[in-house]
Amino acid sequence: MQQAAPSTSPCFPLSHRNTAECGSESPAEAEKDEPTGASRMRSIVSFYICYLLCLGLGLACTVCVCVWNSHWRGGFAWDGSTLQFNWHPVLMVTGLIVLYGYGAVVYRVPLTWGQNKLPWKLLHAALMLLALVLSIVGLCAVFDFHNAKNIPNVYSLHSWIGIAAVTLFAMQWVVGMAGFLLPWTPISLRALLKPVHVWMGGSILWLSIAACISGINEKLFFVLPGYNKLPPEAYLGNFLGVLIVAFGLVVLKILSHQAWQRPDSVPQDLVYSPLLQDERENE
Amino acid sequence: MQQAAPSTSPCFPLSHRNTAECGSESPAEAEKDEPTGASRMRSIVSFYICYLLCLGLGLACTVCVCVWNSHWRGGFAWDGSTLQFNWHPVLMVTGLIVLYGYGAVVYRVPLTWGQNKLPWKLLHAALMLLALVLSIVGLCAVFDFHNAKNIPNVYSLHSWIGIAAVTLFAMQWVVGMAGFLLPWTPISLRALLKPVHVWMGGSILWLSIAACISGINEKLFFVLPGYNKLPPEAYLGNFLGVLIVAFGLVVLKILSHQAWQRPDSVPQDLVYSPLLQDERENE
Repeated sequence: MQQAAPSTSPCFPLSHRNTAECGSESPAEAEKDEPTGASRMRSIVSFYICYLLCLGLGLACTVCVCVWNSHWRGGFAWDGSTLQFNWHPVLMVTGLIVLYGYGAVVYRVPLTWGQNKLPWKLLHAALMLLALVLSIVGLCAVFDFHNAKNIPNVYSLHSWIGIAAVTLFAMQWVVGMAGFLLPWTPISLRALLKPVHVWMGGSILWLSIAACISGINEKLFFVLPGYNKLPPEAYLGNFLGVLIVAFGLVVLKILSHQAWQRPDSVPQDLVYSPLLQDERENE
Repeated sequence: MQQAAPSTSPCFPLSHRNTAECGSESPAEAEKDEPTGASRMRSIVSFYICYLLCLGLGLACTVCVCVWNSHWRGGFAWDGSTLQFNWHPVLMVTGLIVLYGYGAVVYRVPLTWGQNKLPWKLLHAALMLLALVLSIVGLCAVFDFHNAKNIPNVYSLHSWIGIAAVTLFAMQWVVGMAGFLLPWTPISLRALLKPVHVWMGGSILWLSIAACISGINEKLFFVLPGYNKLPPEAYLGNFLGVLIVAFGLVVLKILSHQAWQRPDSVPQDLVYSPLLQDERENE
């Protein structure tokens, strides 16, 4: 399979290829016409520090939510009991936050830049699909639990925000799949979609974080009568919330940093071109 | 007083002045060397639509939180009772979300672009100071209420996230004041600070929104035993949360849209220059 066509924009917003023209975030570098080898190396090293932080914080979020629900909340089952509810925080944090964040920053890894973009597109889509499936199973866990206990569904603000985040995520995945992976999507539509896709991706992440923070807060008030005395479980739950916020900050920093954008200036022989040519011929 | 010096970066990230070189968000526009008058007009019209939406949503948030706490929660007092607590959501939403958001987008209003930047810097700083003061009074309201009722302070995840947001906001204001309004701050330091200030500004807003969503959710569970039956007050509280999220999305959209950045290419006679010249002479 060939690679999908890159943006036709001569200087795509936030594209690394334009660092020299559009300025890096370091003013000292921006004053030069070309980034030097040293400044490029500094940028790559600082990326990998942030990337390792992102991987570490994501792993810490997953471990923390698993320990909380297995050790402090009694473990897991799928029988309509509170043990079934325990899947909800684990799957939402792992899917909607951690895997989503890992999937979002795939294109930023400099090691992948010299290569055909298609495998990384497929990895991005696969990680996001896995994140979406885990989130939907996480929603099923709580709906099933509510139904078994005759508790109404989707009444709290937490649930409204969470449902909005998962719905937008599902729409984002379908539109992203149709727009960027199907070969017959016009290149002009891809170029229109890309900034919307990038912006919506960041917005879904912070909506998901707001949903998780409100959910953890609500759960701790429900299950800890002595929450205000800060027993060890309260510290663990609060710490999970802090980890999630830190993870979100690092992911959004990686996504917004200009110099860490994937350069789409790949050699023409790697570029998926028929539709691009058709588009241009029709203009 | 003269205007503070603009960035020395030849092509500052996200600067409007660079739209033609760095690409607008519309790929059709990006293919041209210069944005046309028509595309510039479209950009200005779409900005004002977003700006009116921002103003309208902010106003709606303020009205909604005031109506909730005055009509449904019994009104206001400063006597250690729950009526004192009612100041907390009103002041946090009005200060930390609405005024903060209004202050953040001040530089984006195209009407101000042809003018000296200093009055707009002062307006930005003043709105942010007012937002910070309201937020701190909002925190005092809940601390005072807790102390009067012998309830411990700062134990919930909501309070940790909220305190973190206000602390970062206070640090951001002090560093912003020292970095961008004091005339003896070196221009090189300003240029280093600016992307951090912009990024931190957006992060504080979404942290504040996460704090507000978790706070409203917690409050509705505390005061509405029948929250799961969605009485009118539950709809009002949830609707306030949705309005806050919508306001945040619009503000962050305005802040991130490339073509809506203030062009810093003001005439040299308006530019505060002595330190800039000193800096350059020392290089």
